[in-house]
Amino acid sequence: MASRTTRSDFEAIWPTLSKDILAQVKEYGVPDPAITWFEKAFFLSLSLQYNTPGGKFNRGLSVPDTGLVLLNRTLNEEEFKDLCTLGWLTELLQAFFLVGDDVMDNSITRRGQPCWHRQPSVGMIAVNDSVMLEASIYIILRKHFRSHPAYIDLVELFQVITFKTELGQLCDLITAPEDNVNLDNFSLDKYMFIVTYKTAYYSFYLPVVLALYYLQLATPCNLRQAHDILIPLGQYFQTQDDYLDAFGDPAVIGKVGMDIQDNKCSWVINQALRLCTAEQRKILEAAYGRKDGELEAKVKAIYEELQIAQVYKKYEDKAVKELRDKIATVDESEGLKKEVFEAFLSKVCNRTK
Amino acid sequence: MASRTTRSDFEAIWPTLSKDILAQVKEYGVPDPAITWFEKAFFLSLSLQYNTPGGKFNRGLSVPDTGLVLLNRTLNEEEFKDLCTLGWLTELLQAFFLVGDDVMDNSITRRGQPCWHRQPSVGMIAVNDSVMLEASIYIILRKHFRSHPAYIDLVELFQVITFKTELGQLCDLITAPEDNVNLDNFSLDKYMFIVTYKTAYYSFYLPVVLALYYLQLATPCNLRQAHDILIPLGQYFQTQDDYLDAFGDPAVIGKVGMDIQDNKCSWVINQALRLCTAEQRKILEAAYGRKDGELEAKVKAIYEELQIAQVYKKYEDKAVKELRDKIATVDESEGLKKEVFEAFLSKVCNRTK
Repeated sequence: MASRTTRSDFEAIWPTLSKDILAQVKEYGVPDPAITWFEKAFFLSLSLQYNTPGGKFNRGLSVPDTGLVLLNRTLNEEEFKDLCTLGWLTELLQAFFLVGDDVMDNSITRRGQPCWHRQPSVGMIAVNDSVMLEASIYIILRKHFRSHPAYIDLVELFQVITFKTELGQLCDLITAPEDNVNLDNFSLDKYMFIVTYKTAYYSFYLPVVLALYYLQLATPCNLRQAHDILIPLGQYFQTQDDYLDAFGDPAVIGKVGMDIQDNKCSWVINQALRLCTAEQRKILEAAYGRKDGELEAKVKAIYEELQIAQVYKKYEDKAVKELRDKIATVDESEGLKKEVFEAFLSKVCNRTK
Repeated sequence: MASRTTRSDFEAIWPTLSKDILAQVKEYGVPDPAITWFEKAFFLSLSLQYNTPGGKFNRGLSVPDTGLVLLNRTLNEEEFKDLCTLGWLTELLQAFFLVGDDVMDNSITRRGQPCWHRQPSVGMIAVNDSVMLEASIYIILRKHFRSHPAYIDLVELFQVITFKTELGQLCDLITAPEDNVNLDNFSLDKYMFIVTYKTAYYSFYLPVVLALYYLQLATPCNLRQAHDILIPLGQYFQTQDDYLDAFGDPAVIGKVGMDIQDNKCSWVINQALRLCTAEQRKILEAAYGRKDGELEAKVKAIYEELQIAQVYKKYEDKAVKELRDKIATVDESEGLKKEVFEAFLSKVCNRTK
């Protein structure tokens, strides 16, 4: 495999992109205080808070890394800059989603710092900031890729993935409101929809398909293959996340799992609901989604009784096997490479946090 | 002039567009409760609340009406449907902005009904609903106009206008926060920026330019002329709005002006600040932006002392004269028509609410 993109090389691309957006804003004659908001508060804080250093640029780095694998050679300067730019757009998209999600969930911290809307003098301006992050994606696309043969495909890809992610978020919000616990709302079907739409499309499918479009390898066959591997891979990633939230060691995963207290429609509770007795269900109904450590412990006790950890291990083995099988049979005749997916899978399989 | 589009003909186009969006959502296998949200709550309530009947579809109707004038004949069925569809997209864009603005301003009512985020069980989901309204614009554009020669121009037009409107909203939010009155923040320059970016582009420039692109008349010369008339027209419209808020008869304009109590950076206060003595300024500083009828009366008394109503009348006469002069010299050689702008101007000039 060609050598991987380093985080610092990727980060070195950001200043020119942020200057592009600022140049556009200045061209409009925006009054100074709004420029300052952009310059000092908006980009700086957002990139600090939502993209580094807790953020590992997994999505952003995937774009040049996929390009490296597909070309099987070192990227030239232009290719590197363009693929990193597309990578940054996935990070802007994620920042757009997270700023909005934090407002909607009324969250307090993100990666150990106060959420953007909880910063002094931000508040609900965060709603507007989030849509300006979204709009910035298209400013950069227009500036850098307007003459690219796949320009309109890139634009539509972002639009479609955005809508899908918003649908996933809607479904999540109405399935698992923090203030109204009702386990009847939960189901594995809904869970899979939420995971697929809210996470898998933009985190797994998007970066690879951006590289495919950029390199003009986005044939219908390649797009279908990418979809059929990356969506299940994203689903597996999220179930793993949910498993770690309930069963991981906080010292290792770096955070205390809160899914039970937060009434999350997670893989773990959905499995428990599938397997539990009527009596266990009553306990789950009384204890899930409450901000109470003792009630949380009751839920965890039922997870133990139902051996959810083992259920997960079996599920994981099966998911990984199916993914490996699919990857092994990838048709490379139109320029796609198995290695693209192998790299993703090994990153997910080996993570402990 | 060719006969105008009726509101009911325009409204008759909406059901097919709403079905397009719903069909897309269903194709994704969205779970039932989210479909219900879309169907019953989302589109129905939003179109009721944000687009009818208080909303007069001014923006939406301008698109087919502009088409009528430009072609100077009755529209055929396809042209009518397409131009009304583009008109509906301006209404969706407005709904996207208004739902978000109401959340950011923590508003209570919109057109006499509780704001969308204040409807039962909506709350902060409104933030996601607002961006889904935005995303719906591009779903409809893609479905109906993908093979139109100006498709990418239409997409970019919406993107650019969206970004400009968000910049206007940002500037408004940081210039006139409701909870921090500071008249030093105000200036006529900032006022003009906010009015131009937050209102004029999407309300006046967008509908006409959509019709120009659709009819393939969007030459650089026509775009420039449209810009140079419609932006000042939008500015004039908003100053008129601000004037009516302070001096209009509530029985005629249908609402009680709240700009003074709400600390709005309006044309009226900016004129007062320009003309007042140091003593009058002290009173304005102590009384503006307070939720208090007596303090509001003090501000109004100063408006009287400074004869702001007469200042406005003079400004209005000048603005209307300049607009008439510009319209009179419109170059029609590339298919643009003076009548497009005359229709807009007479609507604005003659309104009393």
